[in-house]
Amino acid sequence: MTDSAAPRTVAFLGLGVMGFPMAGHLAKAGHAVTVYNRTTAKAEAWAARHGGKHAGTPAEAAQGADVVFMCVGNDDDVRQVAGDALRGMKPGAILADHTTASAEVAREMAAKAAERGIAFLDAPVSGGQAGAENGVLTVMVGGDPAAFATAEPLMRAYGRSVVLMGDSGAGQLTKMVNQICIAGLVQALAEGMSFAQKAGLDAHKVVDVISKGAAQSWQMENRAKTMLDDKFDFGFAVDWMRKDLSICLNEARRNGATLPVTALVDQFYADVQKLGGGRWDTSSLMKRLGR
Amino acid sequence: MTDSAAPRTVAFLGLGVMGFPMAGHLAKAGHAVTVYNRTTAKAEAWAARHGGKHAGTPAEAAQGADVVFMCVGNDDDVRQVAGDALRGMKPGAILADHTTASAEVAREMAAKAAERGIAFLDAPVSGGQAGAENGVLTVMVGGDPAAFATAEPLMRAYGRSVVLMGDSGAGQLTKMVNQICIAGLVQALAEGMSFAQKAGLDAHKVVDVISKGAAQSWQMENRAKTMLDDKFDFGFAVDWMRKDLSICLNEARRNGATLPVTALVDQFYADVQKLGGGRWDTSSLMKRLGR
Repeated sequence: MTDSAAPRTVAFLGLGVMGFPMAGHLAKAGHAVTVYNRTTAKAEAWAARHGGKHAGTPAEAAQGADVVFMCVGNDDDVRQVAGDALRGMKPGAILADHTTASAEVAREMAAKAAERGIAFLDAPVSGGQAGAENGVLTVMVGGDPAAFATAEPLMRAYGRSVVLMGDSGAGQLTKMVNQICIAGLVQALAEGMSFAQKAGLDAHKVVDVISKGAAQSWQMENRAKTMLDDKFDFGFAVDWMRKDLSICLNEARRNGATLPVTALVDQFYADVQKLGGGRWDTSSLMKRLGR
Repeated sequence: MTDSAAPRTVAFLGLGVMGFPMAGHLAKAGHAVTVYNRTTAKAEAWAARHGGKHAGTPAEAAQGADVVFMCVGNDDDVRQVAGDALRGMKPGAILADHTTASAEVAREMAAKAAERGIAFLDAPVSGGQAGAENGVLTVMVGGDPAAFATAEPLMRAYGRSVVLMGDSGAGQLTKMVNQICIAGLVQALAEGMSFAQKAGLDAHKVVDVISKGAAQSWQMENRAKTMLDDKFDFGFAVDWMRKDLSICLNEARRNGATLPVTALVDQFYADVQKLGGGRWDTSSLMKRLGR
């Protein structure tokens, strides 16, 4: 995607729907990429497609890498994969974690990495699978400015916006703000769309009209019509949103923020899970309101 | 603002922060405007500025008008002002109501008007005081298509988007969807901004970053930074929002829509009123969360 970063030896750990294309963009940018994935078949498929190498463990993949990237599931995965990677990494290297996780685990990993002379960056992303595939993610980073300066040009391979937000944990905290703003917004949109249908309006036309004014949002422009058409088999899954909201609500307990609507919407997502919608897009809040 | 509409004899009833500039745009577009306002001094000031006439009652202002526009406070005001105006209006004329009111009162006025051979259009607007002053309002209309075809070119004097949404009441119902989508959205934004501050982030920078993605909204782009700066002495007042949400919640009782977050945010606005914030902008939901 970019040729502005000098070729580096890097590793990418975790080839899910996000990591697979992100690692691909690094390879296309000319970096020497070694990948690791818990399920080996995916790592083999990636290496076959992109001509890179794959390794059997995080530590093995990380050996000799200037920068190690990772994108895994949750806090426990981060502890396990980062812990193993650090054992293989050389002093002076950088470990950048794209997982959406707690600020606590980010600070914990940063401390662990520092003991070995390694810099840890928490670097969660937004933009979803499409953003990863098209290389237009937003990357919110916390950690050491010098490490950021080294890693940032590489992250540009898949990030349209790559921003240092502060010390370790600040990337995760910024991602939390993002998810808090989305949760209540999507519920409000669902209530509006459900009301429009119950009121007998041409709801598609309503969206065209009100999206020109103060009710406008990315969600309205990109999700309202699929909500009205009862299409939810795409996008960002309810199960992942609940994981993220749990991180937000736990952090709010620590910092004293009051999140009444976020907490309520998290409960609504539990309803959606009970409807069998764990893998539906977050806009499926519409499903529990009815039409 | 526009010269596409043939000059007409019109009346404008209600010269509040919206009606005053809207009537002004009609005069500037070349129409012969007679205004009425409950407080006469405002009508005199308007006539002095725009060179139009002013009348002592709605019926008097409406006499001989092809189209009578009105923009007043609530359902009771609509009943009183429209009722009086209809007594002065000629058969074949059109009464267009820009008040945000119930769909019920719109249907009631449409029936009353029809008895006298007059068409009633419910035509609430969005875009606020700035939209009215700059002539860029969105006008959501319910009623007879032929009456809409006559009134629409005139409404273009202050409306950037003027759309027929359906039968009598459909304009009001569309405006309700707009307010429902905004209520929960603004609360979500307030929770996000409050959390960002409690987390010790540079919240202005957070807004810059996350407004590029799925959390983006008109409210985030236009209200997040004023919320962070504790500025609420502008915009759309909490008292008016509560009036609008009361209309939404009553209509939902009728049509069976479930609006849990809208109902909750309405209660939060009651808290803001208790804080003395009835005239603060709706983004003042931030005030009850703390920083």
